[in-house]
Amino acid sequence: MTSPRSDGRTPDQLRPVTFARGWSENAEGSVLVEFGKTRVLCTASFTEGVPRWKKGSGEGWVTAEYAMLPRATNSRSQRESVKGKIGGRTHEISRLIGRSLRAVVDVTALGENTIVLDCDVLQADGGTRTAAITGAYVALVDAVAWGARHGHVKGGKQVLTDSVAAVSVGIIDGVPMLDLPYVEDVRAETDMNVVTTGSGSFVEVQGTAEGVPFHRSELDALLDLATAGTAELTALQQAALAQEL
Amino acid sequence: MTSPRSDGRTPDQLRPVTFARGWSENAEGSVLVEFGKTRVLCTASFTEGVPRWKKGSGEGWVTAEYAMLPRATNSRSQRESVKGKIGGRTHEISRLIGRSLRAVVDVTALGENTIVLDCDVLQADGGTRTAAITGAYVALVDAVAWGARHGHVKGGKQVLTDSVAAVSVGIIDGVPMLDLPYVEDVRAETDMNVVTTGSGSFVEVQGTAEGVPFHRSELDALLDLATAGTAELTALQQAALAQEL
Amino acid sequence: MTSPRSDGRTPDQLRPVTFARGWSENAEGSVLVEFGKTRVLCTASFTEGVPRWKKGSGEGWVTAEYAMLPRATNSRSQRESVKGKIGGRTHEISRLIGRSLRAVVDVTALGENTIVLDCDVLQADGGTRTAAITGAYVALVDAVAWGARHGHVKGGKQVLTDSVAAVSVGIIDGVPMLDLPYVEDVRAETDMNVVTTGSGSFVEVQGTAEGVPFHRSELDALLDLATAGTAELTALQQAALAQEL
Amino acid sequence: MTSPRSDGRTPDQLRPVTFARGWSENAEGSVLVEFGKTRVLCTASFTEGVPRWKKGSGEGWVTAEYAMLPRATNSRSQRESVKGKIGGRTHEISRLIGRSLRAVVDVTALGENTIVLDCDVLQADGGTRTAAITGAYVALVDAVAWGARHGHVKGGKQVLTDSVAAVSVGIIDGVPMLDLPYVEDVRAETDMNVVTTGSGSFVEVQGTAEGVPFHRSELDALLDLATAGTAELTALQQAALAQEL
Amino acid sequence: MTSPRSDGRTPDQLRPVTFARGWSENAEGSVLVEFGKTRVLCTASFTEGVPRWKKGSGEGWVTAEYAMLPRATNSRSQRESVKGKIGGRTHEISRLIGRSLRAVVDVTALGENTIVLDCDVLQADGGTRTAAITGAYVALVDAVAWGARHGHVKGGKQVLTDSVAAVSVGIIDGVPMLDLPYVEDVRAETDMNVVTTGSGSFVEVQGTAEGVPFHRSELDALLDLATAGTAELTALQQAALAQEL
Amino acid sequence: MTSPRSDGRTPDQLRPVTFARGWSENAEGSVLVEFGKTRVLCTASFTEGVPRWKKGSGEGWVTAEYAMLPRATNSRSQRESVKGKIGGRTHEISRLIGRSLRAVVDVTALGENTIVLDCDVLQADGGTRTAAITGAYVALVDAVAWGARHGHVKGGKQVLTDSVAAVSVGIIDGVPMLDLPYVEDVRAETDMNVVTTGSGSFVEVQGTAEGVPFHRSELDALLDLATAGTAELTALQQAALAQEL
Repeated sequence: MTSPRSDGRTPDQLRPVTFARGWSENAEGSVLVEFGKTRVLCTASFTEGVPRWKKGSGEGWVTAEYAMLPRATNSRSQRESVKGKIGGRTHEISRLIGRSLRAVVDVTALGENTIVLDCDVLQADGGTRTAAITGAYVALVDAVAWGARHGHVKGGKQVLTDSVAAVSVGIIDGVPMLDLPYVEDVRAETDMNVVTTGSGSFVEVQGTAEGVPFHRSELDALLDLATAGTAELTALQQAALAQEL
Repeated sequence: MTSPRSDGRTPDQLRPVTFARGWSENAEGSVLVEFGKTRVLCTASFTEGVPRWKKGSGEGWVTAEYAMLPRATNSRSQRESVKGKIGGRTHEISRLIGRSLRAVVDVTALGENTIVLDCDVLQADGGTRTAAITGAYVALVDAVAWGARHGHVKGGKQVLTDSVAAVSVGIIDGVPMLDLPYVEDVRAETDMNVVTTGSGSFVEVQGTAEGVPFHRSELDALLDLATAGTAELTALQQAALAQEL
Repeated sequence: MTSPRSDGRTPDQLRPVTFARGWSENAEGSVLVEFGKTRVLCTASFTEGVPRWKKGSGEGWVTAEYAMLPRATNSRSQRESVKGKIGGRTHEISRLIGRSLRAVVDVTALGENTIVLDCDVLQADGGTRTAAITGAYVALVDAVAWGARHGHVKGGKQVLTDSVAAVSVGIIDGVPMLDLPYVEDVRAETDMNVVTTGSGSFVEVQGTAEGVPFHRSELDALLDLATAGTAELTALQQAALAQEL
Repeated sequence: MTSPRSDGRTPDQLRPVTFARGWSENAEGSVLVEFGKTRVLCTASFTEGVPRWKKGSGEGWVTAEYAMLPRATNSRSQRESVKGKIGGRTHEISRLIGRSLRAVVDVTALGENTIVLDCDVLQADGGTRTAAITGAYVALVDAVAWGARHGHVKGGKQVLTDSVAAVSVGIIDGVPMLDLPYVEDVRAETDMNVVTTGSGSFVEVQGTAEGVPFHRSELDALLDLATAGTAELTALQQAALAQEL
Repeated sequence: MTSPRSDGRTPDQLRPVTFARGWSENAEGSVLVEFGKTRVLCTASFTEGVPRWKKGSGEGWVTAEYAMLPRATNSRSQRESVKGKIGGRTHEISRLIGRSLRAVVDVTALGENTIVLDCDVLQADGGTRTAAITGAYVALVDAVAWGARHGHVKGGKQVLTDSVAAVSVGIIDGVPMLDLPYVEDVRAETDMNVVTTGSGSFVEVQGTAEGVPFHRSELDALLDLATAGTAELTALQQAALAQEL
Repeated sequence: MTSPRSDGRTPDQLRPVTFARGWSENAEGSVLVEFGKTRVLCTASFTEGVPRWKKGSGEGWVTAEYAMLPRATNSRSQRESVKGKIGGRTHEISRLIGRSLRAVVDVTALGENTIVLDCDVLQADGGTRTAAITGAYVALVDAVAWGARHGHVKGGKQVLTDSVAAVSVGIIDGVPMLDLPYVEDVRAETDMNVVTTGSGSFVEVQGTAEGVPFHRSELDALLDLATAGTAELTALQQAALAQEL
């Protein structure tokens, strides 16, 4: 029997996922993450100090910015710097990435330091936000380690309380499927992005009916599929982080 | 036994909800919706024709813009027109409202007409985006009726395939609660906005762990609470729409 | 004999004017003012401290921002936040409102406190700027009282040295008329906005020949009409402020 | 007896006024106008065609833009192009100049042509907006003549129905004075800009109480002074225009 | 004898240069070019049609946009999309790249097609603009070939009349040196970017005295060094383009 | 034999050059410089103190801003303040002027003072950037003298280490020519701007092939022509500065 998916995967199978740690020499943490043809460069910039509104709080700050190169997609899009403003989609994804990572950061343990995660999509083929979150976590681990090595982060307490990974799921022709590339994404009746911790709890659940509204049973099936997927991504993150940088 | 809620409601109880239809004389549809002290003016502007990229498609276009008056909140915030750009939160909510309403619109039946839903928060006390969606649906119904009355919408097919309503739910001190005002919203460990159709299917599910990540069982309890809440809002929408304008 | 005005008023008659004080719970002063169908929400935000360039001066600061909801008018206009800049008309009216209110404020008696008047037009039917000034004065009184009650304004000296009210006048078919609604405004040959104090002096006089330039005798007639109108508005403000909030 | 004015003028005396026509070779009309040390370069750009929203109306369009060089004033101000937005004052003056000139233009006689008046203040010493209006009229005359000479403006009807001139007046130490330089302007209790036609009617009257509100008798005195001043400016415009270009 | 350069090169030696063609699957031409640690992703987007102002001219259009990822450099810089405007340096380099490529394009042979070169610096270590030009040429060749293969470019005439390559040179401690990395660039007394064609003519010469002004003899020495460097780069481009894609 | 130039000059001849020092009364230094019909107002604003990032360095700061009035050119261009952003060409020229002047300023001798050079093109006929640099130097000299006279600049060391002047050169029909007006500029095959010091060294060399790339011999001929031209401009600057202000 043939696969219902153009790339021959089973419905519950991830695309090939790779993490190239240390891809950028300048950043305190960096990884080029690939989910199939989706390719995102995640850099983590560690700086001492926090924004003015957090000064004296004893707490650190973690934030994220997502962007896409103009020709990451199939047809070229105008640069947001040229337009002079950031689009709604970009804002929304940047906020999602930031929230997802902050969910596993103990800001008190981080101390008054700032980590900015830049997730720049070099090539887009669906699932760029979930690849960005999954890759940004790996870059974040390396940046926290850098901070510890250079004495900016005091020991005693773990800065990262858990790991975080994300995946997209969707229903296509009635079949729930994991990790959608672009060709599947545009056909999905329902599209969901799920962010979980390594220990299996939910950080974010964002489901949208693209065509017809979805039933509770479909929602349940998608959640099952997604949690299995993020569990697998968690294992891949750990494997990547186990290697010598 | 006393209520765990400052306003004396039970955990599964909505705040008082009112719809003042026809609040603005200029718009083709308008409603001042109140969820407790949250007060949103929703206007629906019907215009013939569609944006350039939809011309000749035979399809209509429905979009939404959300904004907050500077002193809708407890402390004054700077106008986005003064800042010169729209913030991420505003963009995200505008997109959510637009998607939610489009889920119940048959754009072919609408024909090449445009309806813009403006949701301006006059007073904010939590749940502004869910009040906006719930009110905007009522304004949309009136605008579609206006279009039909004036011959811009051809009969034969229903433009609105269902109704749509939204509510917020959250977990506070371990208890799932419905329709959070501001004081509860800031204390919630998990915050979820759920948009459903009148027939009970999901249009959007957006859950965020504010403090600690949440388990599947908590997610399930929140979904149960939310669907009961939106069913109640659906009935209130129908009652409001049953009245003579 | 029939009235020359579509709404049956005599040339020297105001539209029905109402002030709903305390319309917004969050602001230190607020009023929903109505001049016929023109409806403006005026909020006064009182904050301790002044902008940097006034620090140490011992003086307070009062400023205003005027805006219109996109569907306040008969056809929807684009949001200035979406355009990314504030239009000339908006700027000009904001500046006029600010100047008008500052004319009756003793900034030394106010002390180093700031009051921002936000005037948001919810429904527009001519005379929005004059309604805004007239309503903003009422919100200002309440905000100053709030500041006094909370000990931010030291007693001894009156913060408000007088009251302020504004009205539009114009010449239509050769007849000077008071308080023009939109249908009259577009037909007026000459359009004038007059701001006076409660004691009858002028704060602002802005007359513009829309069609043909006007003679000194016409200017004089318009000034007479306007000062009678603002005297009446002053009485209405006092009546509104005499009520318990 | 000595003059109450620092430059020795009597209260009803204009500063030396000059018009250097044809100052810029590129523009269809141009004049460097000086009111004492205030120096404004007014250029009139004549182009065939009108903005989209006037196409097919048979009417022309006249508009104006006012700006100040960063070091026109005593201390350098930041360029509006660098700030990325135009300030309220600039907008307001641009609109005033445009309205004032349109008051003497028969747009039907102009035909579907556009004239843009650029008024750039090279040196500011009070009264820049009134100098700009007075100079822009002269540049406008030359641009209309250019349009007629080149066959873009059909004869038969006069494009310019009258002339227009403007002057500032103010009350200083209780004395009404004409044409205020900067040192007087900052001391004025009341500040008024008056725009009249050559035939003596009013186009704009803008009076503002800078310090204390003003009485009707003061308003009357200022209007008398201003109309005498603009009559004198009208004569100077005619003299300048009588010369060979 | 030891090298005066930190990386051991002789003064007239290039850094290791590589071209990874086809790095991005979506673009019609793409190359990841490396000059030592400087890494620039150049994509060429081929689209039919030209901007409005070139329509009907029979000529094509080639333009370029240069940008830097926020963490391409040693310390993170703010995104230009977040600032809302493009900096002077970015503009200047984008214009230089566009001019350099247009110098070898026969726009008539290209026909009414547009090619946009996006040069995004992923890692910066000096010479990013010269690497961008050198890489963009390679991407341009592939995009032109794509246009020919797909019938958008008519044969008969060569679209590319020559090749183009660029290199930086500078004087450090009195010694002219080729292809400066960041550590050398900041120390250079004079900095020059030279763009030449494959046939050895100059397209651009941009020399700047960073410290003390330079003499004609120094200018001559730098030009000699640069032309030898670009000749070498030309050979490397040809070798990269000789390979099967 | 007739001249190849429309204005009758020999190829190596400058246009008539004049410097009107003290043209603006408000600025610490100002000059209206003319290169033929090109007319640039250069003002130098001297202020005590430096930008934040230079505080405590003991060094001063010199920067420049270039702009063009909308009708300086033959057809009107939109104001950059109206567009809301500064174009690439404007940025590039502002940066060039700033760098050129800083090349002759000893920032330590200047002390913690700032000088901003504003170069506003009132009429453009080619060579606006070179006229701006040449004129700005004269304004700079006067501003430095003002700073010394008012005790802001301590004596002992020369603030200005040399003078600076600039000229354009180009090849037209194979003939190298000096100081190109607009009609020549658009025809030039190669266009070069050269900035030199009074002592004859190079500050900037910017050559661009407009049509066909240029050979080394052509580059050499242009450099010879330019250095003779800037030597002549240096003499004219000295003559202008020798006069009593």
